[in-house]
Amino acid sequence: MALRAVGTTYPNPPVGAIIVKNDKILSRGWTQPNGVPHAEIHAISQIKNKRDIEGAHLYCTLEPCSHEGKTSPCVNKIIDLKFSKVIISQVDKNPLVNSTSVNKLRSAGINVVIKNFGDQVRNLNNIFFKSLNNNKPFITLKIASTADGKIATKLNESKWITNSISRMIGHKLRSLNECMIVGTGTITKDNPVMDCRLDGLSNRSPDIFILDRKLILKRNLKIFNNKNRKIYIFHSDKFKKKIYKLKNINYIKIKEVNNVLDIKTIIRKISNLGYTRILVEGGAKLSASLLIKNQIDEIAWFRASKIMGNNGINAISELNIENIDHLKKFKLINTKTIDNDQLSIYRKK
Amino acid sequence: MALRAVGTTYPNPPVGAIIVKNDKILSRGWTQPNGVPHAEIHAISQIKNKRDIEGAHLYCTLEPCSHEGKTSPCVNKIIDLKFSKVIISQVDKNPLVNSTSVNKLRSAGINVVIKNFGDQVRNLNNIFFKSLNNNKPFITLKIASTADGKIATKLNESKWITNSISRMIGHKLRSLNECMIVGTGTITKDNPVMDCRLDGLSNRSPDIFILDRKLILKRNLKIFNNKNRKIYIFHSDKFKKKIYKLKNINYIKIKEVNNVLDIKTIIRKISNLGYTRILVEGGAKLSASLLIKNQIDEIAWFRASKIMGNNGINAISELNIENIDHLKKFKLINTKTIDNDQLSIYRKK
Repeated sequence: MALRAVGTTYPNPPVGAIIVKNDKILSRGWTQPNGVPHAEIHAISQIKNKRDIEGAHLYCTLEPCSHEGKTSPCVNKIIDLKFSKVIISQVDKNPLVNSTSVNKLRSAGINVVIKNFGDQVRNLNNIFFKSLNNNKPFITLKIASTADGKIATKLNESKWITNSISRMIGHKLRSLNECMIVGTGTITKDNPVMDCRLDGLSNRSPDIFILDRKLILKRNLKIFNNKNRKIYIFHSDKFKKKIYKLKNINYIKIKEVNNVLDIKTIIRKISNLGYTRILVEGGAKLSASLLIKNQIDEIAWFRASKIMGNNGINAISELNIENIDHLKKFKLINTKTIDNDQLSIYRKK
Repeated sequence: MALRAVGTTYPNPPVGAIIVKNDKILSRGWTQPNGVPHAEIHAISQIKNKRDIEGAHLYCTLEPCSHEGKTSPCVNKIIDLKFSKVIISQVDKNPLVNSTSVNKLRSAGINVVIKNFGDQVRNLNNIFFKSLNNNKPFITLKIASTADGKIATKLNESKWITNSISRMIGHKLRSLNECMIVGTGTITKDNPVMDCRLDGLSNRSPDIFILDRKLILKRNLKIFNNKNRKIYIFHSDKFKKKIYKLKNINYIKIKEVNNVLDIKTIIRKISNLGYTRILVEGGAKLSASLLIKNQIDEIAWFRASKIMGNNGINAISELNIENIDHLKKFKLINTKTIDNDQLSIYRKK
């Protein structure tokens, strides 16, 4: 249930909830877009006669909330409806919760069990905790390259290196992320839309953060056409914001150092806006700057079985690594064959 | 049985033979080093009392020979020993055989069945046929790179990008090939031994072909130390052969064109010496020149889960491909996870 919500819930975590009575599932819920309502309330809302809930068990992938936010505290509702038992996978490390709900439920005479539902659930929660407590959203780098790691010809042709199924999985990846960061180079070269073009998931296009230090991008670019998502432009404090009428564009001024916008400052600002999952699809320089600062948590590397040779454009720009012990190390956690392409998933070590 | 012989049999193909009587295996044989003796004779040699063979069935992965070579024709021995049936996977496309043995056996009253033993056997035979009839040995390119396709730092450090198990599999690959080609650049930079250092397989080190156009290599290099294999040096006709006392070095003069030794001429000369399987382990320029001429039949690509960035040395040098449709296309036929490395096997499309 929690997985259904991934990519849509920010600034809330994706949570799943199941209500069980007499060994029968009464309803299922998951965090709704932007966290309204929470998973528990979503599950409760599907039960017509609320009296049926009395004595039921509630399974939650995360401790229910106890604080007033955009919604009223779930914990009160759970007590009011007389659940007899609540089974949660993890205590919420959000300092606003952090076991207060567990204690409140127990004080109300409800049996609370904390039981690890497994790695998949823990990973979801940990991404949220890290994002909230360390100002560090989970960053996925997507690369689509030849077998020798080239993402385009030297004339910048990249359509298409990987096959159509790989590209669909790429769109799915967009739907699982709340926002994307993209550099000016990629936008001017490719004029991309960067939306999710899968049937039924077109409303899942991530919000966009553009690094446009000098504010040079023209407003007739395709990326500005999609009105259903937020667009943010990071620019240097040395360059003046132009006035455009597109109301979905937000400007964020950053102090530049040596003609560069500091990438860690940018990530922190994105985190402060509540985003917990960021997708980066290149270009090579942006990927390199994130790798240098150890900001990449996961790499989804699609490799076609084709070779371009060294006059193509490399997936990753210079990292200035001279010593072989200083290579950026990842852990290979999964690999899939996609027809004649290969997808390798790496996680930060 | 045939697979046991791969890499050791040149100029003969690796063949397997099994002798069966009353549904019981009497003996197994495979082509012995450099083809002496052939698989059938090797299997026969293991049966003490030759009279036991009368009425037995002989399974062969390839049609037995009918011509006098380093050994006398196997087909005569099969007739003499009164096998009742011979089951072969494929007729030998060597023009010296090409069904003559099948006919001779049938004339002698032996039941001959031609039955495909499967792709693995056909692949072995086809490599031999192609090498013999088209002067085109099977060329495997081995690459050990980072996830982003780099084989060394810009200071040429490459020890070690891949893990120790990957490197052992790399040594196994050497044992399966009859010879290797290597460029002067790799030898001067790395001073490699290029032998097979697996326990029990040290006698399986491939012969070495060095491309030393100007004859600049010093004789104190490690590669010249192993006396148990043949070493050939291809050099330009413009540069004079120096006289060295190492007796295992053979010189082959090639006409150079635009300061380059033509790679297809080199492959043909290696084929003329009887070699059917060549391993290339780089460097980047040699790999590129073979790819440009479509000479690579298989790539064994070991990828570590590390990233070096674009100041490392690329696995493949310039191929001068400007159009994305002209990328060198391969078929992904196998992929293995080796701890935190990944091995992908590509075949020519």
